[in-house]
Amino acid sequence: MNKILRVNMKELTVKAEPTRKEYQFLGGRALIARLLLDEVKPACEPLGRHNKLIFAPGLLGGSKVPSSGRISIGGKSPLTGGIKESNGGGVVGLKLGRLGYKAVIIEEIPRNEEKYLLKITADGAELIPAGEYWGLGVYQTAALLRQQFGDKVAVSCIGPAGEKKLAAAGIANTDTNGVPSRYSGRGGLGAVMGAKGIKAVIIDDSNSGAGEPANPEQYKEALRQYSRILKESPVIKTYTDYGTAAMVQVTNAIGGLPTRNFTTGHFEGAEKISGEALRETILARQGKTRHNCMPGCLIGCSNVYVDAAGKEIVSPLEYETIALMGSNLDIHDLDAIARLNYLCNDYGLDTIETGAALGVAMAGGVIPFGDKQGAINLVHEIGKGTILGRVLGMGAQIAGKVLGVINVPAVKGQAMAAYDPRAIKGVGVTYATSPMGADHTAGNTVRNQVDHHSAQGQAELSAKSQYTVPVYDALGLCLFTSAGIGASPEVLCQLVNAQLGTDFTPETLFKMAADTVKWEREFNQQAGFTKYDDRLPEYFYETPNPATNTVFDVSDEEMDQVHK
Amino acid sequence: MNKILRVNMKELTVKAEPTRKEYQFLGGRALIARLLLDEVKPACEPLGRHNKLIFAPGLLGGSKVPSSGRISIGGKSPLTGGIKESNGGGVVGLKLGRLGYKAVIIEEIPRNEEKYLLKITADGAELIPAGEYWGLGVYQTAALLRQQFGDKVAVSCIGPAGEKKLAAAGIANTDTNGVPSRYSGRGGLGAVMGAKGIKAVIIDDSNSGAGEPANPEQYKEALRQYSRILKESPVIKTYTDYGTAAMVQVTNAIGGLPTRNFTTGHFEGAEKISGEALRETILARQGKTRHNCMPGCLIGCSNVYVDAAGKEIVSPLEYETIALMGSNLDIHDLDAIARLNYLCNDYGLDTIETGAALGVAMAGGVIPFGDKQGAINLVHEIGKGTILGRVLGMGAQIAGKVLGVINVPAVKGQAMAAYDPRAIKGVGVTYATSPMGADHTAGNTVRNQVDHHSAQGQAELSAKSQYTVPVYDALGLCLFTSAGIGASPEVLCQLVNAQLGTDFTPETLFKMAADTVKWEREFNQQAGFTKYDDRLPEYFYETPNPATNTVFDVSDEEMDQVHK
Repeated sequence: MNKILRVNMKELTVKAEPTRKEYQFLGGRALIARLLLDEVKPACEPLGRHNKLIFAPGLLGGSKVPSSGRISIGGKSPLTGGIKESNGGGVVGLKLGRLGYKAVIIEEIPRNEEKYLLKITADGAELIPAGEYWGLGVYQTAALLRQQFGDKVAVSCIGPAGEKKLAAAGIANTDTNGVPSRYSGRGGLGAVMGAKGIKAVIIDDSNSGAGEPANPEQYKEALRQYSRILKESPVIKTYTDYGTAAMVQVTNAIGGLPTRNFTTGHFEGAEKISGEALRETILARQGKTRHNCMPGCLIGCSNVYVDAAGKEIVSPLEYETIALMGSNLDIHDLDAIARLNYLCNDYGLDTIETGAALGVAMAGGVIPFGDKQGAINLVHEIGKGTILGRVLGMGAQIAGKVLGVINVPAVKGQAMAAYDPRAIKGVGVTYATSPMGADHTAGNTVRNQVDHHSAQGQAELSAKSQYTVPVYDALGLCLFTSAGIGASPEVLCQLVNAQLGTDFTPETLFKMAADTVKWEREFNQQAGFTKYDDRLPEYFYETPNPATNTVFDVSDEEMDQVHK
Repeated sequence: MNKILRVNMKELTVKAEPTRKEYQFLGGRALIARLLLDEVKPACEPLGRHNKLIFAPGLLGGSKVPSSGRISIGGKSPLTGGIKESNGGGVVGLKLGRLGYKAVIIEEIPRNEEKYLLKITADGAELIPAGEYWGLGVYQTAALLRQQFGDKVAVSCIGPAGEKKLAAAGIANTDTNGVPSRYSGRGGLGAVMGAKGIKAVIIDDSNSGAGEPANPEQYKEALRQYSRILKESPVIKTYTDYGTAAMVQVTNAIGGLPTRNFTTGHFEGAEKISGEALRETILARQGKTRHNCMPGCLIGCSNVYVDAAGKEIVSPLEYETIALMGSNLDIHDLDAIARLNYLCNDYGLDTIETGAALGVAMAGGVIPFGDKQGAINLVHEIGKGTILGRVLGMGAQIAGKVLGVINVPAVKGQAMAAYDPRAIKGVGVTYATSPMGADHTAGNTVRNQVDHHSAQGQAELSAKSQYTVPVYDALGLCLFTSAGIGASPEVLCQLVNAQLGTDFTPETLFKMAADTVKWEREFNQQAGFTKYDDRLPEYFYETPNPATNTVFDVSDEEMDQVHK
């Protein structure tokens, strides 16, 4: 990978350029952080001409390393007003990498609100008028694009939510089946894509390089070790069997499963929406567990959730969605949650942000908690862009302001994921201090064997995680591999070096991670953020979580040490 | 004045306490800045229990000095997230001062959302259940309260907008006629009052001190000079004849009259909404020009605007409203503007914020520009609290986000007043750098004889004004007196010292002003504001005002020097 594709939506030009030397050993999130800091004025209007939308595979993108094809999508977030990298699975990262692109940088906005498709092949790239694709849901968009451009293409696209520039809009990436359900969901980057007038990026890697390793012998041995380690991990085994939904019973037991707009962390209906229930239902109905989002994945945390007749409702159904659109809404019905998930996907909405916004709407009395049909109706309102829909589509924080709900689970304007910060305090520290806003993937601590209710040591735990995650996000590796390979960074380096011909050490990899967070914080600082933004909403400090009888009590001083 | 009244809405207690020594020579805005910095955590939730709402007359409050009865109301703003002092005319400041109160501090929020009236008399204060007052418009509220408590009482109250905690809600103060039309409009402090469950503060100054000067002989002489200076000022003569509406033709000639959501600064219909047209209409219909909001005012900038049958529509009709709800909405009909003004007043809405929000709604296609009846309908939506109404009632910035309008004339979340910052650049500097958000009263430069289109010297001009205004806001003096007395600070000191028995010099008065801004900025800094918040929206730097062909081009470096 040695090229950067620059797309100018004002001039309607595409241009491949060589990668600058200082970007050579950066990929994914790390490259995005550096590029945004170098090229975008942090104080710019996120939906205006100065923001840039960047697609960057990780350094391993295009290789055959299992689980290495994640795509990082970045820009200034319309939700947080800060920097954002939003990471998705599927085959987009793989195919961009195979075409030799380290990054696709989309600049400017169209002069007259024209809409386009961006098609990228081995022969170059071009902008094609989006025509009737504009307005379609992501499922139909991807299906029609694959009819038009061949069923081997990968697609990143937005739905009506992104087109309407709603801040809860994500970007959908196609998986191994061509289904656009691998979401770069967070941060509202779908709205940035909508503002740039791009409905979809279509990537055709026919006639591209084969992603062969630089050093095949070393690669073979390193791959063997890597694969063994992943296969032996009990955590990964759980992902394979139950998917991320295994977390439902874990967080519910800790008292950290967000329930009824984060008013408690224990949900009476948890069992009905648990990983076990999910697996049993899927197996009984002949759906699919152990589903891969990327080719050759050794984890297979995904699934295909089907209805009683065996017909697919949504794929995958994951923990964060089950919590935010289940317990958080007082809904203990996997079918209903799956339907909500499908709808959000199709409209192009992040299920976390949308679930949190619906929780706020229920807290504000728009519909009662537990009202399944009401929730579905509200998602339709968002998709249609009614006034109420636009309020909710702007995310939980704006929804709270408009609906008069003060207790909104959000930091820096972005909704929390599915961990109550009073019960799982390390995640609370991450929510507060991550440059990404409240984002569990920026530094999840829930798997650590600690007293999650105690404030002690949580800042350090979060810091350790926050400074580890960017390694994976820069390589394009699925974060779940860290459950195995995290303990063997030297093996990871051998694999990376064998593939790329580099000489990374664990130290230089972690240095890249630290630089990434430093650049992101520098961007945010110039966007106006201070330590006072690195805090949770007031009520988490003052209103106990009834399931644990704890408040969030990690001190400001400790929080301010996270990035020291 | 030597007492502070402390009202706790959780405990439902009222307590008068002596003024701490360090507050002795502070009043109005200066006292509010110091109190908020001392007592309120700047990062707190504005509508939560930690915010405080403070009513503080100026140091001259309660005296017979003409135009000295302004009331300062302050707290953390739900609109800007920073400190706010919102200054109003009428008789509230006078009567609180006569009762000896330097400040009324309302703390906490009710346990069970109960609603109260706060009654303050010479015998003490008490909380009375608000009963059926809750829900009434401000006009009916004040009229009924004056029936119940006697027509000599002063009233500060909120309307439905404040009850609904909408961020565009102001607080209405009664004038010499008992009409609650003197607005502490800006910053959304009506929502803070609503959150505290206070519908109205009723002040009965029967049996209070007479506000006699400490040194009657000196006072008499100083007053004579003060009055002569005011009477001789040609600017004040204009205020008397035309009211603030005289500004319409001034800003329109400069190209700075906000028109159609600040897309241009020249309004074709300016003449029809000018001060001249206003005066002619009022005189022809036997309304009233030269109306006083405070007893004994020498300026009389207020008016009573009547319909063709001579029936009052609204009092007063002022420049900012005429521009924001007139030219800004493409409405060139004083009757329609007056009706919009009345409606906003009655619902308890700031006409500047609401006018800007309506401009955004028109830009967003909710209704067309120029649609008078549509605008009236939208104000009713706000008052009723429909979803669309709540969106608009949260102010221009939130409305822009929800309605997908990027070009919103606001700084720090607060809408600009009636001066296009590309045409009147000193006001642009004030909008950007004032701790109050976009607020013309924090440092208006329009009356200076400079080239308003040139960036040169505008930062200094704004700074000078921003560090002068707090003198008036601390004394309780109407800012319009500065048009005369501003050039004779020694006379002002003589008057103040004769009244209070103090030994202020121009230097110590200006020192208090500088301290005020310093404290306000310190509060904001701890609320998370940085220099990056001291900027105008992007489009003012990039899209020329067609009336002047200028963009806002005061450099960031110059802006950052304003408070140095």
